[in-house]
Amino acid sequence: MPIDLAALLEPSRTALLLMECQEGIIGEGGTLSALADAVRRHGTVGHIACVLGAARARGVPVFHCLMARRPDGGGATANCLLLAATRKSERPLLPGSPQQAPVPALAPVEGEWVVTRFHGLTPFHGTELDQLLRNLGVRTVVATGVSVNIGIVGLALEAVNAGYQVVIPREAVAGTPDEYVAAVMENTLRLLATLAPVDQVVGVWS
Amino acid sequence: MPIDLAALLEPSRTALLLMECQEGIIGEGGTLSALADAVRRHGTVGHIACVLGAARARGVPVFHCLMARRPDGGGATANCLLLAATRKSERPLLPGSPQQAPVPALAPVEGEWVVTRFHGLTPFHGTELDQLLRNLGVRTVVATGVSVNIGIVGLALEAVNAGYQVVIPREAVAGTPDEYVAAVMENTLRLLATLAPVDQVVGVWS
Amino acid sequence: MPIDLAALLEPSRTALLLMECQEGIIGEGGTLSALADAVRRHGTVGHIACVLGAARARGVPVFHCLMARRPDGGGATANCLLLAATRKSERPLLPGSPQQAPVPALAPVEGEWVVTRFHGLTPFHGTELDQLLRNLGVRTVVATGVSVNIGIVGLALEAVNAGYQVVIPREAVAGTPDEYVAAVMENTLRLLATLAPVDQVVGVWS
Amino acid sequence: MPIDLAALLEPSRTALLLMECQEGIIGEGGTLSALADAVRRHGTVGHIACVLGAARARGVPVFHCLMARRPDGGGATANCLLLAATRKSERPLLPGSPQQAPVPALAPVEGEWVVTRFHGLTPFHGTELDQLLRNLGVRTVVATGVSVNIGIVGLALEAVNAGYQVVIPREAVAGTPDEYVAAVMENTLRLLATLAPVDQVVGVWS
Repeated sequence: MPIDLAALLEPSRTALLLMECQEGIIGEGGTLSALADAVRRHGTVGHIACVLGAARARGVPVFHCLMARRPDGGGATANCLLLAATRKSERPLLPGSPQQAPVPALAPVEGEWVVTRFHGLTPFHGTELDQLLRNLGVRTVVATGVSVNIGIVGLALEAVNAGYQVVIPREAVAGTPDEYVAAVMENTLRLLATLAPVDQVVGVWS
Repeated sequence: MPIDLAALLEPSRTALLLMECQEGIIGEGGTLSALADAVRRHGTVGHIACVLGAARARGVPVFHCLMARRPDGGGATANCLLLAATRKSERPLLPGSPQQAPVPALAPVEGEWVVTRFHGLTPFHGTELDQLLRNLGVRTVVATGVSVNIGIVGLALEAVNAGYQVVIPREAVAGTPDEYVAAVMENTLRLLATLAPVDQVVGVWS
Repeated sequence: MPIDLAALLEPSRTALLLMECQEGIIGEGGTLSALADAVRRHGTVGHIACVLGAARARGVPVFHCLMARRPDGGGATANCLLLAATRKSERPLLPGSPQQAPVPALAPVEGEWVVTRFHGLTPFHGTELDQLLRNLGVRTVVATGVSVNIGIVGLALEAVNAGYQVVIPREAVAGTPDEYVAAVMENTLRLLATLAPVDQVVGVWS
Repeated sequence: MPIDLAALLEPSRTALLLMECQEGIIGEGGTLSALADAVRRHGTVGHIACVLGAARARGVPVFHCLMARRPDGGGATANCLLLAATRKSERPLLPGSPQQAPVPALAPVEGEWVVTRFHGLTPFHGTELDQLLRNLGVRTVVATGVSVNIGIVGLALEAVNAGYQVVIPREAVAGTPDEYVAAVMENTLRLLATLAPVDQVVGVWS
């Protein structure tokens, strides 16, 4: 079916989600991980910034979905390889630290939502995100950020479960390696979400 | 059955919850509502402070369960009389405002948990509370704060649903009017929780 | 505020919930518990049947919210007095048993929803109820059944948390003792829900 | 780290999950979809049957996580390509139909859990699954079934979010195409779960 992107993205019923666009995850500082490197190579932050600018211009609510980690690790678990790696990280996303903050180009402005969690891998589980979106009358979420391997797939699954439409501006998400990102788009995300180039999404909101 | 309170309250498996002990809800400032008046008449803040002191001394994790309201009311609903009243309040619990803060005697200290929500009436729904408690290995929650009419009953129901034991130190909760509080204790909370005098709870942790 | 009951109960956006109207809980058989006795004295089943008939006539979706218990008790807990009592019951709500079935006057018909749970005390937690209501476009739930002490208060709190309007036809719910039911209506449920006589609700749907 | 599979799979703290092993999804009848074809080529049902047999022999609780669809489609949404396709299916998983039933080799036996949902894509969201597992004292879930593209990834994410360890017996899950399954194992599931050959899992339980 040809998707009516303008209808899907009607500003009064849409929200923009930025998934873990944090300095300690995708930022320039320190030894770059493979994910941060992919973000840099593809200019993902710039693409997200374009979507963010367009959303702000139209009054689309913006949600910054962030991870944090207490100094004592409390409230978190290390029940998988990814979370165990987080536990040992030298950039542990302490609340209020530079690493835990969004990268400067994507920093929240007055009135935007910040939904921070200490547990798990995805933005909806055990957070206020779903109920806030419901209460705002949101029907479509636009997913941006990282990673296609875990967080973006999780975000899309959770959003579909809760009844939302999901739109993914392709260049506004990143993962590793590149060929896997393409494969996830084709074999998983295409079944869950409407994939569109960033400039089409921005165009709808212009 | 005689309850083994010491076993129920074993510090490594217990958490203390303070429900909406906020200046704008139970505090001294401004025109006292019936609830704030009940809290003052019964010395509820002092009783909660006793439980809190004992919990801190034993390293029992403490959760401050707070309500907040954005200036634009976003994320909230007015789908019942209580929430509609909140919307019109002159003390609207703006994030970071003196009204939204816990009363001074019960202010959080370093390392304690603050779980703030913009929606609804109870502390577990759509928040990280349950998963944080699980990840900390908590099996029993001690419920304090307000109100017996709504929030404490809701807290107890949600905690029982999720499999926790609930202990309520009687003088550490408040509601209105007095005779209704007694009736709820007898006809609802007794079925959901172990009711005990504050000094028994404090005694276990001494 | 004068409530516009007709708007609240618009059939295409409303669902009727029957909470635990099961033979083993409110039925005539066996030694009557205090709750079953109250249901009998007040003719609660007849009142619910009136609401149910009106809902069916207007195509309002009907949800039968039921409790069940496996022979081995698996999946349940005895973490409060009420659930511990259930565990010892001689009418243990085995799936498919006469005790677990709705009372005959309120039996489900083809096309109605049955949402059965093995755990907890309230109809929304850990069940598909909320998502089914959302997917059906429901905005208001009409709460009937038992008990005012626990299940109806829990239902109302959960529904308000999730953003629904709640309407309670007064004579279509029951609890014990009578004076406590009146007190809960006045001091808790009135803050959460629109209370209306059964004949007004039925009138809107006639 | 070398994983202690025997400790992870300790029978009293483990559950086996079968995800959508239903006739209308992976069965032999009718025109085989790509997924059913992959299941047949790889002998996935036989592999799952091996794990199931071993679990039953050790008393590990078994959960059949099933999808269903009402004749009127009520309670479901078509908010993504995958769910829209389900809506148009000629094998629509009507409750109680042969298509909705598990394939014969994996049919539930007395005492096993069947958790059926009408909405969404994953087994935990809006179902009793998490609370049943908690109440049974489960700490590790073994994931089998389909599909690696959607349901198994979703199951693993949800389980990790809720604090469980996840073990995936590699040959007991399926997806399409083959090379994508291998890529998801390497780039997503390996970060979420312990991947092990079926015979190792079976060996631990022998």
